[in-house]
Amino acid sequence: MLRSHTCGELRITNVGQTVTISGWVQGVRDKGSLLWIDLRDRYGITQITIETDNASKELVEIARTLGREFVISVTGNVTERYSKSDKLETGDIEIYPNKLVVLNPAITPPFTIEDETDGGDDIRMKYRYLDLRRNTVRKNLELRHRMAIETRNFLDKLNFLEVETPVLIKSTPEGARDFVVPSRMNPGEFYALPQSPQTFKQLLMVGGFDRYYQIVKCFRDEDLRADRQPEFTQIDCEMAFVEQEDILNTFEGLVRHLFKSVKGVDIPTLTRMTYADAMKLYGNDKPDIRFDMKFVELNDIVKGKAFKVFDDAELVVGICAKGAAAYTRKQMDELTDFVKRPQIGATGLIYARYNADGTIKSSVDKFYNEDELKKWVSVFGAQPGDLMLLIAGDENKARKALSELRLEMGSRLGLRDKNTFACHWVLDFPLLEYDEDSKRYHAMHHPFTSPKPEDIELLGSNPGAVRANAYDMVINGVEVGGGSIRIFNKQLQSRMFDLLGFTKEEAQAQFGFLMNAFEFGAPPHGGLALGFDRLCSLFGGSESIRDFIAFPKNNSGRDVMIDSPSTIAQAQLDELAIAVKK
Amino acid sequence: MLRSHTCGELRITNVGQTVTISGWVQGVRDKGSLLWIDLRDRYGITQITIETDNASKELVEIARTLGREFVISVTGNVTERYSKSDKLETGDIEIYPNKLVVLNPAITPPFTIEDETDGGDDIRMKYRYLDLRRNTVRKNLELRHRMAIETRNFLDKLNFLEVETPVLIKSTPEGARDFVVPSRMNPGEFYALPQSPQTFKQLLMVGGFDRYYQIVKCFRDEDLRADRQPEFTQIDCEMAFVEQEDILNTFEGLVRHLFKSVKGVDIPTLTRMTYADAMKLYGNDKPDIRFDMKFVELNDIVKGKAFKVFDDAELVVGICAKGAAAYTRKQMDELTDFVKRPQIGATGLIYARYNADGTIKSSVDKFYNEDELKKWVSVFGAQPGDLMLLIAGDENKARKALSELRLEMGSRLGLRDKNTFACHWVLDFPLLEYDEDSKRYHAMHHPFTSPKPEDIELLGSNPGAVRANAYDMVINGVEVGGGSIRIFNKQLQSRMFDLLGFTKEEAQAQFGFLMNAFEFGAPPHGGLALGFDRLCSLFGGSESIRDFIAFPKNNSGRDVMIDSPSTIAQAQLDELAIAVKK
Repeated sequence: MLRSHTCGELRITNVGQTVTISGWVQGVRDKGSLLWIDLRDRYGITQITIETDNASKELVEIARTLGREFVISVTGNVTERYSKSDKLETGDIEIYPNKLVVLNPAITPPFTIEDETDGGDDIRMKYRYLDLRRNTVRKNLELRHRMAIETRNFLDKLNFLEVETPVLIKSTPEGARDFVVPSRMNPGEFYALPQSPQTFKQLLMVGGFDRYYQIVKCFRDEDLRADRQPEFTQIDCEMAFVEQEDILNTFEGLVRHLFKSVKGVDIPTLTRMTYADAMKLYGNDKPDIRFDMKFVELNDIVKGKAFKVFDDAELVVGICAKGAAAYTRKQMDELTDFVKRPQIGATGLIYARYNADGTIKSSVDKFYNEDELKKWVSVFGAQPGDLMLLIAGDENKARKALSELRLEMGSRLGLRDKNTFACHWVLDFPLLEYDEDSKRYHAMHHPFTSPKPEDIELLGSNPGAVRANAYDMVINGVEVGGGSIRIFNKQLQSRMFDLLGFTKEEAQAQFGFLMNAFEFGAPPHGGLALGFDRLCSLFGGSESIRDFIAFPKNNSGRDVMIDSPSTIAQAQLDELAIAVKK
Repeated sequence: MLRSHTCGELRITNVGQTVTISGWVQGVRDKGSLLWIDLRDRYGITQITIETDNASKELVEIARTLGREFVISVTGNVTERYSKSDKLETGDIEIYPNKLVVLNPAITPPFTIEDETDGGDDIRMKYRYLDLRRNTVRKNLELRHRMAIETRNFLDKLNFLEVETPVLIKSTPEGARDFVVPSRMNPGEFYALPQSPQTFKQLLMVGGFDRYYQIVKCFRDEDLRADRQPEFTQIDCEMAFVEQEDILNTFEGLVRHLFKSVKGVDIPTLTRMTYADAMKLYGNDKPDIRFDMKFVELNDIVKGKAFKVFDDAELVVGICAKGAAAYTRKQMDELTDFVKRPQIGATGLIYARYNADGTIKSSVDKFYNEDELKKWVSVFGAQPGDLMLLIAGDENKARKALSELRLEMGSRLGLRDKNTFACHWVLDFPLLEYDEDSKRYHAMHHPFTSPKPEDIELLGSNPGAVRANAYDMVINGVEVGGGSIRIFNKQLQSRMFDLLGFTKEEAQAQFGFLMNAFEFGAPPHGGLALGFDRLCSLFGGSESIRDFIAFPKNNSGRDVMIDSPSTIAQAQLDELAIAVKK
């Protein structure tokens, strides 16, 4: 037996017992007559105390060879500590060992195994198995485990069935790029890894399964941004015989349950906002509503005053930053530089300070006198001490830039506390978006999303105006998931593929199985998928999903620990009937 | 709202309520003045009754258009039935509808949606979404769901953490063939799909995770036999600071918990048998011990009697089939044909009947007189009425053939009831097996399995004799899983790779990350994996794992429903820098 207890388990009530514990040497302090070992495992740290004069010579000798991260097993008596520690849960006791075995020595780790480590990102990823020993990383994965359990508990109680859908599926050109897998048994043919189990979960609904879920790996071969992974995990769900309202209620329930059970936080009923309002009021389809700072449109009051920037602009739009009137010149310059960054793309920033003394001072005083500026104050609803920030230009660009500025101001003003959670739904997304490059419509969500019945007549005349029964769940400005009511009628599905530029043959070849299935009695259905990695990182108060994945890949899609991807043997290529192009 | 209740929910206590239910039309009976609709969903069937004279004309007209598998929604009053049905859980009530909406019509399904269907395997797979509507198929997947929940419940309570390991990993030549995934971002390089999360779960142990599990998809590009799937699911587990005994106890507990919680069956403590005994007594490393019929070796008593077949044989071995002495000539011929089939490979079958009247009659009376045959009776421990069956030949072949015959006799004698469960461990597998083709040793389990400490000295002199700390769990003659105590020491791991014919460079390139990890304080660890598909099929009393997979592939690795694998676009191949060889 290698242990009778863990390193986090012993308490004052165990005093007098003989126990065996095993773990890693966190540290050794050798004071000559006394030698202490902090022994660590996943559950905690326990202090081993050796009185070198009283202990066996052999034991002391072994103890003096120990280094950081040695794996040892210790048998001894649990003793009440003379000076107790309230930093450790085991701080009331210590163990006087009569046996100490080195199970495995360790060479010096390349970084310290501490909450605050001296290791950079790259080295921690290369030695991820050491990084995983750190409390902070382990706690993230424990949180993830807890999230998965509570998700399943909640859905199981509602009669959802967890069904595994296949990983080796079929490549389809719609959406992001697929990872593909050459088939040896079918030379020249390929499987694809699923970007989501979308069609399979819909077929489960056709198959009468009614309520499906799965915590499932999905794959996208995209150029990776900072926080994207080629493989990621979704809480994937689908329901039949439901309307949008049923789905919103069910998954609002799930998220509230997760907050309550995992974080002990009561989240109020989720507010709802249309896509149109989200864009109008926040310039963003996933607004962070932990703070207000809604957009104010100013065309009516700022135009015609000979200020060319405003007169030429399609839209002048602004926000009111509470209590920021006293921003320094330097701070204002920073904000101007911020909005002029290429990825934000504004041409400049106009501002007006509503000073605490009631005076108003703007960067465009030449064009707007105090009376004019008082109108600004009025439409912004500004109070003395507030700062009004205005961006002008092409409507979409101006909104997008102001959205970024709003988030920046939210951060600067401390309005985006990671321990505050604002959850809401964004509804009524457009069904289609026009792509200038390919000169055709793309599905905003995916081709299986149903148009709102009242907008179906617009499909022919004005497809871009058709709204979908589609919804996103947003937490703290992050889209954590989304879904839709699906098309369940062959004719409408076929029409969607037409609109998306599929020929009849292409549609049939790629999605014929689904359209055929709709002819055999498909029920009304819909669903949603939540990004599990993202949800975990939000719950854990981190910006990075990588912190919540045991073995993540880097921005080149590479696992630097195992050094993958890698070349494979020519024999493997031959068997698969493929060649690598030079 | 599309339903207030399911089709399996309404009882006598609901009488008087107005309800809405939705589902599929299982059948319609039209008797003119009365028309009945059986409405089905996942939860059951509810009878809708229409008095055609009293119902609205429109409703009756709609009802008369309904066909099998139409999806409808019905609102009406729950009424107590005049003649109740005890075949349906809802058999006390019926619904008199005042509203009937066709949500989706259905064309005639290609096979009947009944427990006993008229559809063959191929057509059911092509229309799997219709097959899934059948009770029997749905119940299999509900069983699977329940198995997964109870597995997680059990392991969660024991502090196991569910950790997701990556799907895009690295190809290694050891073991079965990998599925590979070309990397677009790293041209010429490939990921592999995991055959198991073996190295990752070991790294989690190095990382201090201590108790890991995952219900996880694994992949093997093998030529598919009847009951293999290219993607399959494992309950994958690993523990640190354990010895073999800890692992056996833990997972014996899991399986007993599953039997109890899912099937209400109490399974006794698992018996244990060494690999050597399994081979000696049953000719099989996964013996079905629902019945006894152990092997009896006869060399000592049958040789030297001028019967050349026995004299020339390395081994004469037999079984005693209780109560089968009265087998007819035809039955004996069938058994002889059975053992002579190429896949079984015996050259013939010798038998001796111990008749009910106490006489003995054998197929080799010419060589063995009654006194000799009485010695047979004695070593077999046969009773009057028993049939002794003997096979002679090369030792391994004879045992293998007799093992098949034993299973056949078990089946014929009704000793293999699928509702009886005999679970046991087979222990002490050989570490290595010699492969005549490649003239080298292969790992019997995998290269990370540890030799028994007492056998390590044999590694140099007689590698084939080294036993491993490896174990299989066997239920009813099916290997449902296996595992081992792992090597956790770099030098021993390196020596294993030597033995397996790896050069130092190959070992380092492929498994360097693991051997390096062992230098940083790896704890003793071990684990096991259970085949989840197989376990579910055993619990469900089926021979076929395919019945327990929502969307299985056929023997060519093809999903005939979605028609995958398939060709992909040239542009995709170009992006991936690969070409298909003609």
